[in-house]
Amino acid sequence: MKPVKVGLLGLGTVGGGTARVLMSNAEEIARRAGRRIDLVHAAAKGLAEGEKPEGTESAVVTDDAFAVVENPQVDIIVELIGGYSPARELVLKAIENGKHVVTANKALIAMHGNEIFAAAQEKGVVVAFEAAVAGGIPIIKAIREGLAGNHIHWIAGIINGTGNFILTEMRDKGRDFDDVLSEAQALGYAEADPTFDVEGIDAAHKLCILASIAFGVPLQFDKVYTEGISKIAPEDVTNAAQLGYRIKHLGITRATADGIEMRVHPTLIPEKRLIANVDGVMNAVLVMADKLGPSLYYGAGAGADPTASAVVADVIDVARSLTTDPDNRVPHLAFQPDQISDAPVVDISQVETAYYLRLNAEDRPGVMADIARIMGAGQISIEAILQKEPAAGESTASIILLTQRIREGQMDQAIAALEALESVTGEVTRIRVESLSAD
Amino acid sequence: MKPVKVGLLGLGTVGGGTARVLMSNAEEIARRAGRRIDLVHAAAKGLAEGEKPEGTESAVVTDDAFAVVENPQVDIIVELIGGYSPARELVLKAIENGKHVVTANKALIAMHGNEIFAAAQEKGVVVAFEAAVAGGIPIIKAIREGLAGNHIHWIAGIINGTGNFILTEMRDKGRDFDDVLSEAQALGYAEADPTFDVEGIDAAHKLCILASIAFGVPLQFDKVYTEGISKIAPEDVTNAAQLGYRIKHLGITRATADGIEMRVHPTLIPEKRLIANVDGVMNAVLVMADKLGPSLYYGAGAGADPTASAVVADVIDVARSLTTDPDNRVPHLAFQPDQISDAPVVDISQVETAYYLRLNAEDRPGVMADIARIMGAGQISIEAILQKEPAAGESTASIILLTQRIREGQMDQAIAALEALESVTGEVTRIRVESLSAD
Repeated sequence: MKPVKVGLLGLGTVGGGTARVLMSNAEEIARRAGRRIDLVHAAAKGLAEGEKPEGTESAVVTDDAFAVVENPQVDIIVELIGGYSPARELVLKAIENGKHVVTANKALIAMHGNEIFAAAQEKGVVVAFEAAVAGGIPIIKAIREGLAGNHIHWIAGIINGTGNFILTEMRDKGRDFDDVLSEAQALGYAEADPTFDVEGIDAAHKLCILASIAFGVPLQFDKVYTEGISKIAPEDVTNAAQLGYRIKHLGITRATADGIEMRVHPTLIPEKRLIANVDGVMNAVLVMADKLGPSLYYGAGAGADPTASAVVADVIDVARSLTTDPDNRVPHLAFQPDQISDAPVVDISQVETAYYLRLNAEDRPGVMADIARIMGAGQISIEAILQKEPAAGESTASIILLTQRIREGQMDQAIAALEALESVTGEVTRIRVESLSAD
Repeated sequence: MKPVKVGLLGLGTVGGGTARVLMSNAEEIARRAGRRIDLVHAAAKGLAEGEKPEGTESAVVTDDAFAVVENPQVDIIVELIGGYSPARELVLKAIENGKHVVTANKALIAMHGNEIFAAAQEKGVVVAFEAAVAGGIPIIKAIREGLAGNHIHWIAGIINGTGNFILTEMRDKGRDFDDVLSEAQALGYAEADPTFDVEGIDAAHKLCILASIAFGVPLQFDKVYTEGISKIAPEDVTNAAQLGYRIKHLGITRATADGIEMRVHPTLIPEKRLIANVDGVMNAVLVMADKLGPSLYYGAGAGADPTASAVVADVIDVARSLTTDPDNRVPHLAFQPDQISDAPVVDISQVETAYYLRLNAEDRPGVMADIARIMGAGQISIEAILQKEPAAGESTASIILLTQRIREGQMDQAIAALEALESVTGEVTRIRVESLSAD
């Protein structure tokens, strides 16, 4: 078969990795795909005159990304620049020129995916984005294709490796957040500005993509409830362990009778769950589906080679579908465009979860009764209580509560009442708890 | 789009489940696939006159499977009868009639896959078999498509739920093999004749399929080294735990310079590996690939609904590829038919692993020196030794050795020498040890 011609935008970590994988595994790829995948044109900023990074030796290398998108030779544009602009303009131009697109750009898909997929649909081209969620794990393919016979109930994922590395170190070594974050930055796991990772924005980008392909709703990044891990204290990690839980930064999306939940927040999960044992920078996505039940997909969520693995898989998929009539391709958001649902997104105040609460209270009689009264008034059942002795020289003790499931709005009221107690000092720490069981 | 018409062979556990899933999730499936999937003709033995099991209400139901295969209306034959014959004849006839085939029949694919795929290739039809390995886990799709940009180094899988259930119970409750097997049979997890499951034959069927799609070699079931779990003693489970390991019945396939390893046997694996924590009837497949690194796929490996999930996903995939020209479809064995490799299968005597050895020896001076001398003579490095006190009234003690990696042939000689020692009574128990680390 005729070689497929690829134009590559960006030669940074993932772009450079993709160029190298296309070259180093060229023979294996051709044995599978039945044709060569040739990198013919690549664009990157900041290269020296005539510089050809590894893997681009036989390609034209330019600093003008639009020249690649306009190259009539190119069948597939691989966008690995990242960010919103000019990635959006380049992708839209590529589509306009009738080219297929492969991208690892989660921010772009989360924010502009609806527009991009509509344009692709109109031109009959594919925009593939396996690498945008959980790096090299073929999770988009698993959900869109492998689970196509199922109603999906919910998805819970560790989809940011930096956050998972920090929480793992906090647990294993009893270190605090800031300390581990500095190390993660030194190791290159965390960016100089770690906000995207530790405040959950990166995870929220990925989660809204997962929600769309699971439930057939449009991409709605602005409706994802997002809470980071920077307020997790070492004692929360220890308390969780004592209660049989681990704290993970999860992206969770769930179909309920009221609509779709989309939320990213620290979560206590039972330590016996497989996903609770996913440590370090690794990612994992747990999918609960009506027929298959639970299934889990684990692997590297970032890095040059793992992300390139997903990019190249997409390129091969697109190459195979070049001659497929567009109606027979896997729809971008898993469901046919005319079958996209307008199910509402559930506000966080309406979400029901169990809770871990930690509060500092004076160590005197009557405090526990006050707490129990407030929880009772809010219809909140208490599952477990841990009371810690006051530290030497301190008059307040930590009280930890595990509650049963309750709407967030009701919990907000209970927490306000707890914080208003004279015997309670400071804010109540609240971490949601999910059993991740089959029901 | 025009509905796709399915003919279903077999209405047992998986066949019945598939009929029900096609009906109960019909709307969700159509929203994804862009067309209805209609079950039009089904065959099963032993039905009462006019009986129509759930999901077959609008289909013609017959006891003549060949009538379904000959039905010119039918686009896709779903073979869920199991076994070699008449499944093979039915599948070949369906192919001859230009129909696509979806099957969950691991024995059929393992034994007759080369013949079946050749026939399908010639007629330009697809034979899909996602459900044949690890039930509902989309592992065939992950390896053939999701990891298509990688060289795969090795795969290790828990691919028989019955065996994993038995080993989990043995570990958790200190029970012995026969006791748990009886319970598994009572629970319906194990067949009345459990040989296929506990002696590793079922796992070997699946492993040879995994090997073929990972390395592009023909299906060679007869070359899989197969060893069951019926000889695992409770003390081996306990000893493994004491050494930081768990015993799992793994299917392992690896590409080496000498050829392809294919082996199914009990294996000690470090308890900290995620796959060591896959318990009960669940399956998991760990894939080590050059670019992605390790990735793991976990879920239900059997059961009506989970297997039906994979069958229906295949039906949808095939429906989408009906109009694709055959050259652009994913090749049956992942690699293009003219790119199938003739790499030899490595004999078990040439395989290199680490070992757990347990032997009974007289509790007297000099025994350990004899053992050390034999291991030294065989160039076998000892990693750890556990010596158990003789039980009350016994004169022999258990000695447990963990060795470093060595060729099986050399270990065979060392074990023969150990068993020839006057101070050693009975046979030496040998369980292979795999670190499952990235190298």
